[in-house]
Amino acid sequence: MIRVGIINVTGYAGAELARLLFTHPEAQLVSVSGRSRAGKPLAEVFPHLACYDLMIEPEMGEVDFVFSALPHAASAEALAPLARAGLPVVDISADFRLRDPREYAAWYGGEHPAPDLLAQAVYGLTELNRGAVRAAKLIANPGCYPESALLALAPAVKAGIIGPEIIVDSKSGISGAGRTLGLTYHFAEANESVSAYGLDGHRHLPEMVQELARMWPPTEAPQPFDFTQDRPFDFAQGRPPSPRVTFTPHLIPMSRGILSTCYAPLVPGRLPVDEATKEQIRDLYREFYQGEPFVRVVDSPPSTKQTQGSNLCLVYPTADIRAERLVVVSVLDNLVKGAAGQAIQNMNVMLGLPETMGLETPALYP
Amino acid sequence: MIRVGIINVTGYAGAELARLLFTHPEAQLVSVSGRSRAGKPLAEVFPHLACYDLMIEPEMGEVDFVFSALPHAASAEALAPLARAGLPVVDISADFRLRDPREYAAWYGGEHPAPDLLAQAVYGLTELNRGAVRAAKLIANPGCYPESALLALAPAVKAGIIGPEIIVDSKSGISGAGRTLGLTYHFAEANESVSAYGLDGHRHLPEMVQELARMWPPTEAPQPFDFTQDRPFDFAQGRPPSPRVTFTPHLIPMSRGILSTCYAPLVPGRLPVDEATKEQIRDLYREFYQGEPFVRVVDSPPSTKQTQGSNLCLVYPTADIRAERLVVVSVLDNLVKGAAGQAIQNMNVMLGLPETMGLETPALYP
Amino acid sequence: MIRVGIINVTGYAGAELARLLFTHPEAQLVSVSGRSRAGKPLAEVFPHLACYDLMIEPEMGEVDFVFSALPHAASAEALAPLARAGLPVVDISADFRLRDPREYAAWYGGEHPAPDLLAQAVYGLTELNRGAVRAAKLIANPGCYPESALLALAPAVKAGIIGPEIIVDSKSGISGAGRTLGLTYHFAEANESVSAYGLDGHRHLPEMVQELARMWPPTEAPQPFDFTQDRPFDFAQGRPPSPRVTFTPHLIPMSRGILSTCYAPLVPGRLPVDEATKEQIRDLYREFYQGEPFVRVVDSPPSTKQTQGSNLCLVYPTADIRAERLVVVSVLDNLVKGAAGQAIQNMNVMLGLPETMGLETPALYP
Amino acid sequence: MIRVGIINVTGYAGAELARLLFTHPEAQLVSVSGRSRAGKPLAEVFPHLACYDLMIEPEMGEVDFVFSALPHAASAEALAPLARAGLPVVDISADFRLRDPREYAAWYGGEHPAPDLLAQAVYGLTELNRGAVRAAKLIANPGCYPESALLALAPAVKAGIIGPEIIVDSKSGISGAGRTLGLTYHFAEANESVSAYGLDGHRHLPEMVQELARMWPPTEAPQPFDFTQDRPFDFAQGRPPSPRVTFTPHLIPMSRGILSTCYAPLVPGRLPVDEATKEQIRDLYREFYQGEPFVRVVDSPPSTKQTQGSNLCLVYPTADIRAERLVVVSVLDNLVKGAAGQAIQNMNVMLGLPETMGLETPALYP
Repeated sequence: MIRVGIINVTGYAGAELARLLFTHPEAQLVSVSGRSRAGKPLAEVFPHLACYDLMIEPEMGEVDFVFSALPHAASAEALAPLARAGLPVVDISADFRLRDPREYAAWYGGEHPAPDLLAQAVYGLTELNRGAVRAAKLIANPGCYPESALLALAPAVKAGIIGPEIIVDSKSGISGAGRTLGLTYHFAEANESVSAYGLDGHRHLPEMVQELARMWPPTEAPQPFDFTQDRPFDFAQGRPPSPRVTFTPHLIPMSRGILSTCYAPLVPGRLPVDEATKEQIRDLYREFYQGEPFVRVVDSPPSTKQTQGSNLCLVYPTADIRAERLVVVSVLDNLVKGAAGQAIQNMNVMLGLPETMGLETPALYP
Repeated sequence: MIRVGIINVTGYAGAELARLLFTHPEAQLVSVSGRSRAGKPLAEVFPHLACYDLMIEPEMGEVDFVFSALPHAASAEALAPLARAGLPVVDISADFRLRDPREYAAWYGGEHPAPDLLAQAVYGLTELNRGAVRAAKLIANPGCYPESALLALAPAVKAGIIGPEIIVDSKSGISGAGRTLGLTYHFAEANESVSAYGLDGHRHLPEMVQELARMWPPTEAPQPFDFTQDRPFDFAQGRPPSPRVTFTPHLIPMSRGILSTCYAPLVPGRLPVDEATKEQIRDLYREFYQGEPFVRVVDSPPSTKQTQGSNLCLVYPTADIRAERLVVVSVLDNLVKGAAGQAIQNMNVMLGLPETMGLETPALYP
Repeated sequence: MIRVGIINVTGYAGAELARLLFTHPEAQLVSVSGRSRAGKPLAEVFPHLACYDLMIEPEMGEVDFVFSALPHAASAEALAPLARAGLPVVDISADFRLRDPREYAAWYGGEHPAPDLLAQAVYGLTELNRGAVRAAKLIANPGCYPESALLALAPAVKAGIIGPEIIVDSKSGISGAGRTLGLTYHFAEANESVSAYGLDGHRHLPEMVQELARMWPPTEAPQPFDFTQDRPFDFAQGRPPSPRVTFTPHLIPMSRGILSTCYAPLVPGRLPVDEATKEQIRDLYREFYQGEPFVRVVDSPPSTKQTQGSNLCLVYPTADIRAERLVVVSVLDNLVKGAAGQAIQNMNVMLGLPETMGLETPALYP
Repeated sequence: MIRVGIINVTGYAGAELARLLFTHPEAQLVSVSGRSRAGKPLAEVFPHLACYDLMIEPEMGEVDFVFSALPHAASAEALAPLARAGLPVVDISADFRLRDPREYAAWYGGEHPAPDLLAQAVYGLTELNRGAVRAAKLIANPGCYPESALLALAPAVKAGIIGPEIIVDSKSGISGAGRTLGLTYHFAEANESVSAYGLDGHRHLPEMVQELARMWPPTEAPQPFDFTQDRPFDFAQGRPPSPRVTFTPHLIPMSRGILSTCYAPLVPGRLPVDEATKEQIRDLYREFYQGEPFVRVVDSPPSTKQTQGSNLCLVYPTADIRAERLVVVSVLDNLVKGAAGQAIQNMNVMLGLPETMGLETPALYP
């Protein structure tokens, strides 16, 4: 039995990790830490976790595997000694996602707390990076928005069928903002309302751009549709070609779920532009995600509710033939596939366990 | 592996059974039937059940255990031959809940389709009736409202501390009304609104009254606080004393969950009437439910969200000292502890499996 | 044109006053004050009030009429000098609702800031107290819960048809908790959930009891059904007979609206106990509220949405014949009839304006 | 007093017209018709309209002005004789929005019922077409989605600062789907969920394209920023340049409101591309909408709740400087500015009344 710890269990991502781990056959949650709530029983802070008989401790106990659900900066600080000591860790914060510490400084406002670890950190979007995850000791778990956008766009990007003028319009439930108090998240303000935010630049944007850039095929020679290899990212090679992404997140009056609607121009000449295109694109996506347990290419537009509480991402690719544009809709549960479930999936792969272990419960519907 | 079938999988209770059975270690769903959707894949009707590769059939296939999620009348008709053939069945409809076929006719408007089976049917509120469930072949799964009210009131009734003037004020999410279409359940009508219904008599009332009456102690000699025995119901003995219950259900703008607030006068002289009373009542409830895996007596008022997707019922008993009244708040998920989860709990007990098998996932929160 | 001021415009009740006054033909909002937001334009704090060109001031300007939407204690302190100077005021806080300063101290935890003004304060439930409101200079605007319960129960109490064992089970939207931040009101926590609160005694309870007691008929000689007179409350006469009220408020995942379900035993012998009773009770209520512009006795159970944004209270009285109990359901918008609309209705009556002026907009539906 | 009639009052747009007309000082609703509910009191079908003492009739009575809230095709059929007889009418259906009957046939599946009237019909987006509305007798009231997109894009299009590659990503409350029953709109299905629909082409797309094309400046000579003239549409001149619009509507779990996020490339060289661009664009929009009572250019991203129940459209224009893209967010209430309020605004202009008459109530917030 693997002894697992969660640093900062008191937010939604931490609590969701605890919930999912409860039924994991090979991992046992043995230590949870938290800052403000240290000394209280986990069951008091989260009554739905009364199944656990654990106290929230000020510091991590003895464990074999650690998840950090701390905010950025604090997370790297807490994980650095553990990672340096060789403990396998998954960081749910943003600290190890951006490869370039200058980007980190620009978007997160401060020097990176552990730049020496960046080279060994692996971006943990398992489906796109499985080989590297398998070998990693330090995983940067993806942001919830990038997760939804990258899974939606990867097959098209790698197939070279779209140009770099990309728009990602995302709709997120309010748990995405965390458990922090704020007037924006007051029920009476958020209910019966939609709004856009982050219009001057959301921190998940550079993460999307970095990962899209990595998978972008050389322009002179578009790839054949071969999705079988992990392409290693060689940062020393210099900046890859930059997709021009506009990303707009929106707050939706629901607790969980992200739907991203992604738009990009179809590259002329790569696909016929008629009604058959849609089916060809769907085939391309099906082939790309064939055998993936947690990504399903679906035949009709999905709803976020179909993934509530589950580790699935549903992807619906189609095209606007009139405007010669790819349109892909993806949905996932921001706290599961967008955070805690993805983190456990990474743990499974890192530890050589079956990738789906502990993550097989179907979505809660309705 | 027990081969399980669901008759009428196409409503919310049927789909929830399928969801919960997917991770049950000893039961395998092998056959699902439905009327209007026969011939379609289950995954098409319910995309969140795409984990199953099952077609909806017009008739049940070969199985070892059957759940019926048909509407009343149709359910008894479908189950009668199976039950007579000795197949163990759990009926989620109301057909076998009322012991007296005249009551059934009065409330459900028609002759009972299988009155001969009523004598062998067991009311499947496991916590209050475990011995009988263990021996039963035909279980009448409780209604969601009675489940919440009976678990809230049983300890007080059996202890003889309350009088029969009972009010049950229940608040239910809209999935309780099923998947049927109706203007009342249209999102734009139901959202941002609360309403009462069933004020001229809801069908769950006689079920509450029947079961409360069964557990009522003889008035001349109030029971000592001894909760250890199942009291068998002897209908031939004539009508038990009738609690006078007013039951008002309300529609709440949420998908899942029932909260019942139950009121009854404290019998003078049984408990001191001061602030200590509350703690005494809480102790009494804790003792009553000691060791129960699915009923938790809690120390502060619970919210339905704490049980979302789980088989738990949380009970918060207290007293209004000024008015000398017991007040008990109970919460549960109407589709799990109020329907499908309770049904699987009954199956586990009937088959001699661990009672909690397949039902241990913590609630989805938030 | 009457120059109107609002003290503490920055909460929901204050903002709702401003919204409703905008279309009032005879009153003009000329001054708004607020504590933390002083110096900001009203339109910045509340974008939906951009129709106003007003700054939030630290102190009230020159006005003819004042509403206070301050919290209790602060409100009496701010209003006392104005009231003593003879300015007509409506206090939306609880400060002048309880006649007995000892009750105030017991429930609100502190000496009353202006006990000398209690004698002249009038409880502003216009429908039940119109004569006194007309003559008053200082109005205690009712609490939202008491408003809904008193309008539901007054006809039955005054007619002497119910006994004093009363249960008020109320369901409120979350704006009732104000604009203050708190984990309970975080969208992700409050959404998809119902919970009870205030089980150890809510501050609106003594207000309900006080006003019900005032209208209670002498037990020895039940009143004939004559609803034409205001019965003046003579506190010096000693405490009136005390109804025994249990009041349980619940938080509902919606922004606005209160539904109260009120239960009381029918006094034996006052009404026949058969199906005709319901219609007789409805007639009694219709007669009681005949000609009232803002209370409608309805023929089927109402929903809170039918009153959204309007000053209406809908009342549905019925009976549980089996249990010989009166059941009354009332609905209103907690911010309008339960606060700001009721306050303006009182202003209209105090100033001799038509009672409905500025309050005639139908509810927003859906 | 203008006697007004509503054909098909039984949907949400019809009921909203009735609600808004109740407080209109110069118009009186005297006749309402409906198909299935003819013979019933309006107050029974819509309890929130109990302020009206009107029966739903099978046919329109004697009136001076007519609104039709019938579905497409039926609407043109009902209005054609009235329009030919010279009665001023506003059609809320889509029947007179598309100028080319072939487009109508292609998108609405049938011959246009009254093609002879198309030439005289005026597209009633008052802000963009005021002169023509003033002179019109037959108004095609805009669709709710085009209303939100056109108000968001018009200033940029007319100023020639954007290219034709336009994406409109809209989020709508569920009342937009009407009062018709459907599983998609069942509360338990729609709640806690977001989904995209109409991905194969929504009927509001050709309407957007047509109106954007009309306002598009000749490419060879971009217009100076002069917004003062209505540009008459001369269909005989041949098809105007076609913007390539991708439009994706989404269903949001709320009753009312539309938020559209609109994207288009900034034309190189028209504006500097740096942080100052955003303010310049905002200035351009402010100038464009200067003096408009119902369109407000706002300084921070708006929420739909800020327009709930009001006739306002809030527009927030900005730019993604990195990607050289215009991003505009607009919000409105789909039943008011997106339907009934816009219709009354048109009526006011047609009849020479003050444009804001009866439409001044601030939004209901929260």
